[in-house]
This record gives sequence, C-alpha cells and structure tokens, in this order.
Amino acid sequence: MADLDPERIVRLEQGAVVLLDQRRLPEEEVELECHTAAAVAEAIRTLAIRGAPAIGVAAAYGYALAAELGQDLDEADRVLRSSRPTAVNLAWALDRMRQEPTPARAREIHAGEVERCRRMAEHAVTLLRPGTRALTHCNTGGLATGGYGTALGAIRLGWERGLVEHVWVDETRPLLQGARLTAWELERLGIPFAVVADSAAGALMAAGRVDIVLTGADRIAANGDVANKIGTYSLAVLAHHHDVPFVVVAPSSTIDHAAADGDAIPIEERDATEISDRFAAFNPAFDVTPAELIAAVVTEDRVTRGALVI
Amino acid sequence: MADLDPERIVRLEQGAVVLLDQRRLPEEEVELECHTAAAVAEAIRTLAIRGAPAIGVAAAYGYALAAELGQDLDEADRVLRSSRPTAVNLAWALDRMRQEPTPARAREIHAGEVERCRRMAEHAVTLLRPGTRALTHCNTGGLATGGYGTALGAIRLGWERGLVEHVWVDETRPLLQGARLTAWELERLGIPFAVVADSAAGALMAAGRVDIVLTGADRIAANGDVANKIGTYSLAVLAHHHDVPFVVVAPSSTIDHAAADGDAIPIEERDATEISDRFAAFNPAFDVTPAELIAAVVTEDRVTRGALVI
Repeated sequence: MADLDPERIVRLEQGAVVLLDQRRLPEEEVELECHTAAAVAEAIRTLAIRGAPAIGVAAAYGYALAAELGQDLDEADRVLRSSRPTAVNLAWALDRMRQEPTPARAREIHAGEVERCRRMAEHAVTLLRPGTRALTHCNTGGLATGGYGTALGAIRLGWERGLVEHVWVDETRPLLQGARLTAWELERLGIPFAVVADSAAGALMAAGRVDIVLTGADRIAANGDVANKIGTYSLAVLAHHHDVPFVVVAPSSTIDHAAADGDAIPIEERDATEISDRFAAFNPAFDVTPAELIAAVVTEDRVTRGALVI
Repeated sequence: MADLDPERIVRLEQGAVVLLDQRRLPEEEVELECHTAAAVAEAIRTLAIRGAPAIGVAAAYGYALAAELGQDLDEADRVLRSSRPTAVNLAWALDRMRQEPTPARAREIHAGEVERCRRMAEHAVTLLRPGTRALTHCNTGGLATGGYGTALGAIRLGWERGLVEHVWVDETRPLLQGARLTAWELERLGIPFAVVADSAAGALMAAGRVDIVLTGADRIAANGDVANKIGTYSLAVLAHHHDVPFVVVAPSSTIDHAAADGDAIPIEERDATEISDRFAAFNPAFDVTPAELIAAVVTEDRVTRGALVI
C-alpha cells in the first residue's frame, strides 16, 4: 500500500514551507515552496493545500517560518488566519502557535492531526459492517489532513479490516476534489472505487447501493450543525430519505464552541468563474447540515450518536 | 428577445438533415449536415442533438431523408430507434413516420412539438406566482425540443408574464447541458439567471431561495414515474424535504403507456470517460423519480396534480 508521507503533503524546511501542490494533482506531483507567511496564506487561499486540518497545519508551519525569519508575527497571524473563512482549524492552530512560535510546536500540531486521524478511524470502523459500500464527498484523505485522513481514513481502515467493499466517490464540483484527489489517494491505496457525478447519489441510494455516507467537516457548531463542502447538506437529506446513516468524521479541532449553531458559521463564497467562465454563476463553497440529519459525529475522542451535544 | 428559430435547431434540406451542433455550444454555432439516417443516428448518439422531443424530431427527419434517398427504411428505423435507449420519443416519432414517410410528415411532427411546448407553457404558468425563483436541471429549452422548450418554455412564458424573477440553472454534470445550453438560451432571452453546481440545490432550498423546481422528462411511465437526466431524482427528494413544488413539464409523446412503472424504463449508462478520463467511474445518464414526489405533471393537454394517473 503506497502510503502518502505526511512530510510530502506539507513540511517546514530551512527558510521555506514546502507543500505538494494539490491544484496540479492527479496530473503532476509538484512541490510548492513558500518563503513567507504571506506565501503560505496565498497557497491556502488558492487551494494549493486545502482541507480543514491540513490548512491548520500549513498555517502553523507558516507562523513558525515567520518566527524563524524574524518576520512580523502579528502580520503573519493576520494573513494566515484570514486566508479562508469557513474552517475553524486556522484559528485553532494559530492560537497554539502564538503560545510557542517554534518549528517543534508546528511539527507537534502536524503529528497530532495525523495521530487524531488514526484514533478517529478506530472509532469510526465500529460503525461499519462487512460488505460496506461507502459514499464520500470532496477529499478527506491524507491530502486534506496532513496524513491519513478523516472520513477517508475511516474508509481506509475499514477496507484494511475487510469491512469496506467499495467506495462511491462524489466528483465534487466545481473543483473536483473527489475526482482528482480522493480517486488519486484510493488508487494509491488499492481500494476499489468509482467516481460519480454529485447528482447521482440519490439514484445510487434509491437502488440500495449505498450503506453509509461518510464526510469530513470544516467547522462544527456547538449544537452539532456541520459546515462542510457544498453538497454535503444535499447528501444528508438524501441519506435521511433513504435511511442511510450519514456520519461525520472530524477532529475536535474542527469544533467551534463559540458558534452556537450553523447560522453563526461564515460560508465562503468563491469566484463565479470556478463554475462558469462565460455566464453568471453563484458559487458557495460550503453548506450547513443541521445536527438532526447526522447519525453520528466521530472525533478522536468518541462517537457521538444522533444530534451532537457538546 | 432573440428567439431560437426551430429550423435553426434541426431541419430537412435537399439530401441532408442539418442541425445546430449542441456539443459545440456555447463557444461556437456550427451546423452539422447528416446525409444518411445512420449519420442522424450518430448525431443523436453523440449528443450533437439531444433532449427527448428534439431527438424524436431529428429521427423523423432522418427517416424522411432515407425515404427521399431511397435508402432501406427498415434499416433507417432500426438505427434511429436504437440510437438512445431512454427517451420514448424516438419510437413515438418513428411509428408515425412509418405510416407516412414524407418530409411533410416530419415537418408536421416538428411543428407539433413546438406547438405542444407553447400549450404546455400556458398550462404551466398557472402554477407560478409573481416573484417566482425557479430551479431547473439539464436543458429543456428550444434546443431540447426543436423550439420553445418544455420546463424552460414554462419559465420563459412565466418571465414574459412577470411571474418568474430569477432562474437557478443546475450546471448538470457530466455534460453541462445546464451551464452550456440552458445558460446560453436564457442569456439570449434576457432572463436573469445564475448557474450553480448541481450539489448546491439543497443549500439554496434550505435558504428559502427556490420557489419551484421545473424539469422535463425523457420518459413517463403509466403510473407517473418519470425518467429524466441524472440528478432529477435527487432534486425531487430535496424539493419534497423543503416543501418546494417539484413539477415536470413534458409532451404527451413522452408518456410510455407500455411501461407500467419506472422499473420498466431502461436507463442509459454512458461512457465512464464522460466523468473521468483517468479513474474508474460510473455514469448513469438518467434516474427515475417516483410519482409520489411529483407535485404536478404538465402536458399540452392538462396539469395533473399529485401522483399522475393516466
């Protein structure tokens, strides 16, 4: 099994944060070197690295880089924290880095995310039965987390344990994180999968070909509402209609105790040209799934069944 | 208002069926000349012309062409009838052409489809209230029908009557008939719209920004189940969850009295490379929406509310 080395996804070198440019996958494996915190922020903003836990890790390295280079740390904090609005992991990682702005602290955050992914996966596989055909959305693998993965980590461990039989991969328009990144990771791992149009999920469920839906989260409100990639909410409604369990796998760093519910989570609206370079378009990058549609939230600490109460 | 001339969409000339190549839109307006029934069948199979009523019209012209040229009519019938499996309009049009294999009959079928669209639109606008924000899927306009349109015809007349305020256009993966064709038609007509990722429909409905969903149909079973472009079923479930009326607009030529229910409708599976040219993919082109999720079916004859009984 071709594992994806966490250091290959993002690392701190002398004078640079180096990351695998996810915009170029699966065609090319190209590394991007960022020599300032602002360059790391730009890499996050332009999705060279994406996924809530991974951008937290990248921001931690960017802050450590600024500290090493003697750059303005308040400015580094500001550009990194504001690089994307929806995921709370940026703020979570930067709050920790401000306490100890060192490379060791950033690497500890990175290693911690990977370790939490493994613990999430161990909890999540308790929800899987042999023969499971899982449907997932966007990319929640090693690329999204700095290593191993959240929902995709659970799928991976489920496959290794003989529980997962097949993975339906939502292509995830407009940026095709499923068709480009999740498919690339699953192929490396040798796990059977098929990419489908996002709009095919309903028909697959109606045909009884989906046993569970597993997604990550960009931010979880205190009441259990989950902000995640656009289309997650549609999947949750469809899963509910078909009595298919809809399960969120995300580290506790994704939980925003200051957000009472989903209404308090800012939803990033990205450029319309990601949808159409010719016609008027509307491009919200995330949506909010209310807690009552979620069968379980899996963190590194526990499986919380039903509506999440924190 | 820049109307789309029915003869520009598809027509019979001396020795050729000439059609606007919809694969090249919106970038280029290029005509494709088909000199045999087999060439017309190939144009249908490869989606140079698509949309259930429009391919019926194209098949009628293809059959008339074969008759004019003294070609084998049984063979013409066979290749045209089998060019795509899901829409019943191919069989409907060819059954009529066999009775009278003349250009006049084919043009009568074409004019009849356009006339039926106008009657459908008149019925459908009775379901619209001022300020309507309609969501539609795929392309059901002049391009799909040989002129005017089914669901998009209803939206057009609703806009002319001051009832429709805005149109959400599902981009409709994988072939982007919404983003390419519906957007192109709406722009010509000056109707306000925004293209959205198919997966955004749920979030739009949850935000109260969709007042009605209007789609066409490729085949309607005797019990009212509707086969239409993949993703239609997901929209119907989402509309049901949000108490948004889900309305199908389609000519009576779409009704297949021989199909007892949706299970009897063959669903075309298209090439996986339409989804991914690199990874394994599954690409059903249509899905089936059960009658109980449909608020109304509008044909040229009537509005049938609730589950359709024919």
